[in-house]
Amino acid sequence: MYHETSMQIHTHLTNERNNLIGRTTFQMSNLSIDIQGTDSIGNLIQEWFGNWAVSQNYPIALPDGSTQAFPDFFINNGEGLLEVKTFNAQRSPAFDVANFEAYCLSLAENPQRLFADYLIFSYEKLDLGIRIDNIWLKKIWEITGESNDFPLKVQVKYRDRENNIYSIDNIRPIVWYSERNNVAQPFESYLDFVEALYGTQQIYRRGYSNRDLFYTNYNRLLQL
Amino acid sequence: MYHETSMQIHTHLTNERNNLIGRTTFQMSNLSIDIQGTDSIGNLIQEWFGNWAVSQNYPIALPDGSTQAFPDFFINNGEGLLEVKTFNAQRSPAFDVANFEAYCLSLAENPQRLFADYLIFSYEKLDLGIRIDNIWLKKIWEITGESNDFPLKVQVKYRDRENNIYSIDNIRPIVWYSERNNVAQPFESYLDFVEALYGTQQIYRRGYSNRDLFYTNYNRLLQL
Repeated sequence: MYHETSMQIHTHLTNERNNLIGRTTFQMSNLSIDIQGTDSIGNLIQEWFGNWAVSQNYPIALPDGSTQAFPDFFINNGEGLLEVKTFNAQRSPAFDVANFEAYCLSLAENPQRLFADYLIFSYEKLDLGIRIDNIWLKKIWEITGESNDFPLKVQVKYRDRENNIYSIDNIRPIVWYSERNNVAQPFESYLDFVEALYGTQQIYRRGYSNRDLFYTNYNRLLQL
Repeated sequence: MYHETSMQIHTHLTNERNNLIGRTTFQMSNLSIDIQGTDSIGNLIQEWFGNWAVSQNYPIALPDGSTQAFPDFFINNGEGLLEVKTFNAQRSPAFDVANFEAYCLSLAENPQRLFADYLIFSYEKLDLGIRIDNIWLKKIWEITGESNDFPLKVQVKYRDRENNIYSIDNIRPIVWYSERNNVAQPFESYLDFVEALYGTQQIYRRGYSNRDLFYTNYNRLLQL
């Protein structure tokens, strides 16, 4: 049911796409400037989207508290979760899908988070502002895949001279819309994604993962 | 010489402080919204500041390339470096002073970066937009100090169950303006900061640091 709301939103925005030209103004003292930098565009589009969806009477609400928390929005009174992501259409998607460790634990405790919808905007920079280039509605296993180093593509930071101590910060997207056949493909099912997630955690944490907790709660969810 | 320019800028802005009320508007399609979130305020203030300083004929320029690169601005044709930082006045400063590893190497290669100026804005959230609360002009050793875990206060991420594998991400500020005497104090000299920086790196990297490279280049700088 909530996924239908997400699909309606996605179709509506896609039909509006030619009008989706955005412009940011910041005024302070007597000086008003058009913002050229795009470091903030993800936050701005997300906040715009929430206002737009409410103005169009979609059943959408902000969770309480920080805008950096998961999820970005609740759909249909908390029945579904919606995340908004943004990337520059001239580059590969570089947004953080989620913080790796936080997501591993959060998914184990609440397996229904697996089914959150991701509304993804790509934009093109104009001389003044941006133009929305494309809009996707995806599940997490449709925008993630494996990498050379791990079962799941993640952002890795190395610290040692020999590169053998590392830190996994975030889950990163693959180029899910690529038509080239030599690039990583998305997972074929959500349980393939789950296995890759906890398999990566097991390597990272030397044998420890939240996999068992996930399956316990997932089986409980199936019985509801 | 460049520090005089920074001081003029700081005094000028401080005198203007009552007018420094900022407001962000994002317009897309037919919907224009006032941005309430403050996740982006640092980027916006930084871009506004660059425009403002140019409009006031201060000798300031953006480096080429990414806005995320160091430094944020050059002063007096590259003679000095200026970083702009922002934090919520209702909380402790939480901005990243610099990425820890990148700064260790960068300072070793270019010890003059030690003398970059930091222009720091604290803001208060209003119902609509923000108000600049205070403005500081500081050197890096005046806003950093030691922590319980390391000679330098850094952002640490732990990954294992026993908390004994960690990753240092960023150099973080102390509450340099605190009047309480039970909080960490800033370093007393820039070489104290340098020692804390490379001492922390030596612990983190198990014996390895960029300290020698720093002192080689620093001594060369003194002879110029």
